[in-house]
Amino acid sequence: MRSFLSDNNSGVHSKIFKAMEECNVDHQLPYGQDIYTEKAVEKIREVFEKDVDVYFVTTGTAANVVGLSGLLRPFEGVICADTAHINVDECGAFERFSGSKLLYVPNKDGKLCIEDIEKFLNSLGDEHQTQPKVISIAQCTEIGTVYTVDEIKRLADFAHENNLYIHVDGARIANAAVSLDRSFKEIITDTGVDLLSFGGTKNGMMMGEAIISFNPEISKNFKFVRKQGMQLVSKMRFVSSQFIAYLEDDLWRENAENANSMAKYLEGKLKEINGVKLCRDIEANILFINIPTKWVEPLEEIYPLYEEDGEIRLVTSFDTTKEDIDKFIDTIKEIASI
Amino acid sequence: MRSFLSDNNSGVHSKIFKAMEECNVDHQLPYGQDIYTEKAVEKIREVFEKDVDVYFVTTGTAANVVGLSGLLRPFEGVICADTAHINVDECGAFERFSGSKLLYVPNKDGKLCIEDIEKFLNSLGDEHQTQPKVISIAQCTEIGTVYTVDEIKRLADFAHENNLYIHVDGARIANAAVSLDRSFKEIITDTGVDLLSFGGTKNGMMMGEAIISFNPEISKNFKFVRKQGMQLVSKMRFVSSQFIAYLEDDLWRENAENANSMAKYLEGKLKEINGVKLCRDIEANILFINIPTKWVEPLEEIYPLYEEDGEIRLVTSFDTTKEDIDKFIDTIKEIASI
Amino acid sequence: MRSFLSDNNSGVHSKIFKAMEECNVDHQLPYGQDIYTEKAVEKIREVFEKDVDVYFVTTGTAANVVGLSGLLRPFEGVICADTAHINVDECGAFERFSGSKLLYVPNKDGKLCIEDIEKFLNSLGDEHQTQPKVISIAQCTEIGTVYTVDEIKRLADFAHENNLYIHVDGARIANAAVSLDRSFKEIITDTGVDLLSFGGTKNGMMMGEAIISFNPEISKNFKFVRKQGMQLVSKMRFVSSQFIAYLEDDLWRENAENANSMAKYLEGKLKEINGVKLCRDIEANILFINIPTKWVEPLEEIYPLYEEDGEIRLVTSFDTTKEDIDKFIDTIKEIASI
Amino acid sequence: MRSFLSDNNSGVHSKIFKAMEECNVDHQLPYGQDIYTEKAVEKIREVFEKDVDVYFVTTGTAANVVGLSGLLRPFEGVICADTAHINVDECGAFERFSGSKLLYVPNKDGKLCIEDIEKFLNSLGDEHQTQPKVISIAQCTEIGTVYTVDEIKRLADFAHENNLYIHVDGARIANAAVSLDRSFKEIITDTGVDLLSFGGTKNGMMMGEAIISFNPEISKNFKFVRKQGMQLVSKMRFVSSQFIAYLEDDLWRENAENANSMAKYLEGKLKEINGVKLCRDIEANILFINIPTKWVEPLEEIYPLYEEDGEIRLVTSFDTTKEDIDKFIDTIKEIASI
Repeated sequence: MRSFLSDNNSGVHSKIFKAMEECNVDHQLPYGQDIYTEKAVEKIREVFEKDVDVYFVTTGTAANVVGLSGLLRPFEGVICADTAHINVDECGAFERFSGSKLLYVPNKDGKLCIEDIEKFLNSLGDEHQTQPKVISIAQCTEIGTVYTVDEIKRLADFAHENNLYIHVDGARIANAAVSLDRSFKEIITDTGVDLLSFGGTKNGMMMGEAIISFNPEISKNFKFVRKQGMQLVSKMRFVSSQFIAYLEDDLWRENAENANSMAKYLEGKLKEINGVKLCRDIEANILFINIPTKWVEPLEEIYPLYEEDGEIRLVTSFDTTKEDIDKFIDTIKEIASI
Repeated sequence: MRSFLSDNNSGVHSKIFKAMEECNVDHQLPYGQDIYTEKAVEKIREVFEKDVDVYFVTTGTAANVVGLSGLLRPFEGVICADTAHINVDECGAFERFSGSKLLYVPNKDGKLCIEDIEKFLNSLGDEHQTQPKVISIAQCTEIGTVYTVDEIKRLADFAHENNLYIHVDGARIANAAVSLDRSFKEIITDTGVDLLSFGGTKNGMMMGEAIISFNPEISKNFKFVRKQGMQLVSKMRFVSSQFIAYLEDDLWRENAENANSMAKYLEGKLKEINGVKLCRDIEANILFINIPTKWVEPLEEIYPLYEEDGEIRLVTSFDTTKEDIDKFIDTIKEIASI
Repeated sequence: MRSFLSDNNSGVHSKIFKAMEECNVDHQLPYGQDIYTEKAVEKIREVFEKDVDVYFVTTGTAANVVGLSGLLRPFEGVICADTAHINVDECGAFERFSGSKLLYVPNKDGKLCIEDIEKFLNSLGDEHQTQPKVISIAQCTEIGTVYTVDEIKRLADFAHENNLYIHVDGARIANAAVSLDRSFKEIITDTGVDLLSFGGTKNGMMMGEAIISFNPEISKNFKFVRKQGMQLVSKMRFVSSQFIAYLEDDLWRENAENANSMAKYLEGKLKEINGVKLCRDIEANILFINIPTKWVEPLEEIYPLYEEDGEIRLVTSFDTTKEDIDKFIDTIKEIASI
Repeated sequence: MRSFLSDNNSGVHSKIFKAMEECNVDHQLPYGQDIYTEKAVEKIREVFEKDVDVYFVTTGTAANVVGLSGLLRPFEGVICADTAHINVDECGAFERFSGSKLLYVPNKDGKLCIEDIEKFLNSLGDEHQTQPKVISIAQCTEIGTVYTVDEIKRLADFAHENNLYIHVDGARIANAAVSLDRSFKEIITDTGVDLLSFGGTKNGMMMGEAIISFNPEISKNFKFVRKQGMQLVSKMRFVSSQFIAYLEDDLWRENAENANSMAKYLEGKLKEINGVKLCRDIEANILFINIPTKWVEPLEEIYPLYEEDGEIRLVTSFDTTKEDIDKFIDTIKEIASI
């Protein structure tokens, strides 16, 4: 099967798999005290050009929930877009684990606007209301749009002016970086982001997510929170070694470039088909289309599809090929011609 | 490094690694809808000879906490030994995630006794007290002892007579099965266990733990609880494929037999050294020794050690060799001779 | 001071105070096993004409949170309006205590519409999303509007058709009943409401709130949840006796009639003042007005005010008199004339 | 009925009731911004001779749970005796609301010993284990014993030397103060206690409990935690006014003196009866007796009894009279003579 359902339908990039294999020798101290974890942390610090705190976990939900819970008390809340993964796709894991509240507002093209955040500032100090503490955005957003570096900077500045922190859900941050042609450092470190969920699974890792704190004050208890979050993997080297390969020789970029360019290629091909409507311009590796209702079922028999409110989401991956796309396009054309 | 600190200092058995590699082809549906997960579940049902519910997770803490939380409401509690991993080694993950209470009692050789459980039955129906709902035992126990099949059966019967469930933390259940020379089915299915944390990581897997429910009534919501527990891995095939290799050709037994027999070999060698005292008879792959205080520091410089209350814990693994042990014994002898 | 800030600025109605005094004799069994609690429960069953389960608590937040948490598991959620008290005025108590999620949607005149609820039904069975389980409405709503009996019936029917429950936050249900000229039974029992937060504090009690379950299935564990919610008052008779007086001789109605008619009187007087704009028609005992910005500060010096988005909220109470209102109106006029 | 089941079977002292009545005039700002609450806080500061932070709540469980949760993060724990009210009589409210863990140890005469606390210090910094943060003791203890001032001082010093806080569950602190013939200041302020659950309900109040923080650092967020704990009473004056009367003219002492001296009187009378065995010396207002098994049922028909492990608990109250006791003694004698 070759799927456009999600970039997590792919397997693991061969270089990452090889790195895991290479660390499968000898005994190592458990729970992240091994040499591979040490090296992976160093690599991350190099890439972000900052002496960040790093905590590896195995799922994106864990990266978001453990990180955010680690800096919140239960009466404090997180302002996010209604479309945020943490709000709609994590089964309320955040609320259950943190006891805190998500203050979600309508998104604008998948993004969060300062004017929607401002109203929560009135709650500060009022014991009847959740105290806003974090602004959380996704980069890319869940609908495939990408915040500009300036947009992130403005949100981060606004956060800090109001004694809030800013968190980025970076499940697809590599795709955003390629889209913006900017480094992780420029997008995250330089804009003043406090906390990043640094995702790798969707870009070629097996299960590799890192909670990265740019502010040692917020992460001083994260090690306890990760353990409570059931995410302290004993044979940690097999998570951390993935990051070594991912960051070496810019493998992350190569993977994301393929995904983004294949999305562009897919977009071009889709545009040629009468009856297919693209819902918005493509910015990274996610696109949304409308197709005639009667096409959906036959297409779904061959390709698993994610559909909401009449829009079908298509995602390309680090291993998507032109052949995969051509075959997909042929299938649609065939269905269209019936 | 070759360590006796814990069986999680080892890497991954080559057959398990190979199985992961072999499933790294093509796209698969995410979140456990793949063909490997299907096959792994079948394998587990075969081995336990029951149509069990299976939920794969990545840590032993997650297996315990997600499983137990899935069948409890926050006013219900779990009776366990004071030494239980869930009580002392999981940073309160259970309390945080479930909101429930652990009702821990003094252990007898690492085990739980019916007489210590009975007193909690008085609380039933009393709104001032946590309602006991689950008896949780570890097999092997945290101090390396092994419940007999009859002991488990008696606890399970007692549980069911009193409207309680019985959970087994099976982080080292393979070592227990080898020690008892009994099958998983005989130890778990036949005794009436309701819920099992089926551990693989400590016996040669990379990160492979399965929550197995023998009672569909208790697990009907587990899929939501696993997701809330941040443990729904997207590329699930890389967890589940480990179980396929583990259960095929009885690899689990081969691994545990090595660990147990190496522990026996280690015990024999230690007995020959003047000054080394074995704290209790060995039953599986964990042993505890006393050594003269002045030996501890020099030994620790070469071998990482886990020590509590003057007892040093030694654990053998699926990949421990006689050479590893001989070298360790030589080191101790050398230190003793100074 | 005579205030229009909230109906909780009042003291306690003399008949209610007297009932508390009359039960202050002799010893009674604690925690609700006393004769007054028994009688209060009987009274409530009479009034609602159903064999309901009743749990007394001391705050409205507790009534909402304990009741809802008692019927939810943490992966289940509550659909409510964005203006819901439980969403914006309880500091996230619901999320913290239940671990569950509020699924809030934009209100229409303070109310919840079926079309906004429907979209959540797509989540049913999807482990990635909070499972909708309860529809929660407020009667009166937080902005003073009142659901018709038909509106409640439609929401309740919709809930039950979709395997959901319906909860009513009745902090001001007496004012709604008077506004609709309907009995509690007609508004709640007959429409099929499952769970009611039956408020008394805002209508003349000292601290009297009752969680009333119309469905024994949902409340079978409420006694444990109330205790965990820290709301099991030992000298319960002093809470329950308030309800006896409240329901005897329709004191609740008398109190609410005064509040509602005084609100009407206030509305009439306000309409006569140039510069005062009523934001919407009055339905019960809450009204919202706009006044010139320069009036706010001098008025606030004499009367404490609650203001949001330029609207000032005025609430009348069981003990509000025409004199109170005339004096308030005179003050506004005086300020207007400066 | 006149009962010896618990001191919460009594009603409310007339002076306290009168104080509540006297504040039932006029409107007041809600949620503790009223003049009575201000005065009550002042009174408490006078009595404890310190500028303490005060938060009124309605139950003893709330005082314990809100206070402790307010200073803990979920990975931090509370060391207490196994008999602690918070451990065995609050239905796991602490675990549910705080997400934290109680580290309970065997009691010695109802008390906590430093040697049992010390072992938890090894956990500090270890991410696998709950981080000890608070030592919690009860004064009086749940079995009626009383810590000396020196004992509290030693525990407090030990706590502070090890970066822990010390909490006192003072549900019966008035009885302890009378027993020790010491002031609240001497027992609490001077020993260095950080957090006190200052109970009034068991000594003549209706529902009056105060969380008192002696360390502004720990209580800076308590107002939010109380609200989340559903304990922010709107008509707060009716809680706080009770404290005014309670502390004026040492009513608290008068009440506790009666309870304690009546317990002494009861003890004397019981000693005269053949077959009654006192389990331990009386120190405050609680005593435990053994009686022949065949007496229990007939006695229970007339007097509600609390019995555990063959010991019957008897508690005297602020309103217990010699006549109450004489009648109780006569009843026992009568049963004994059959």
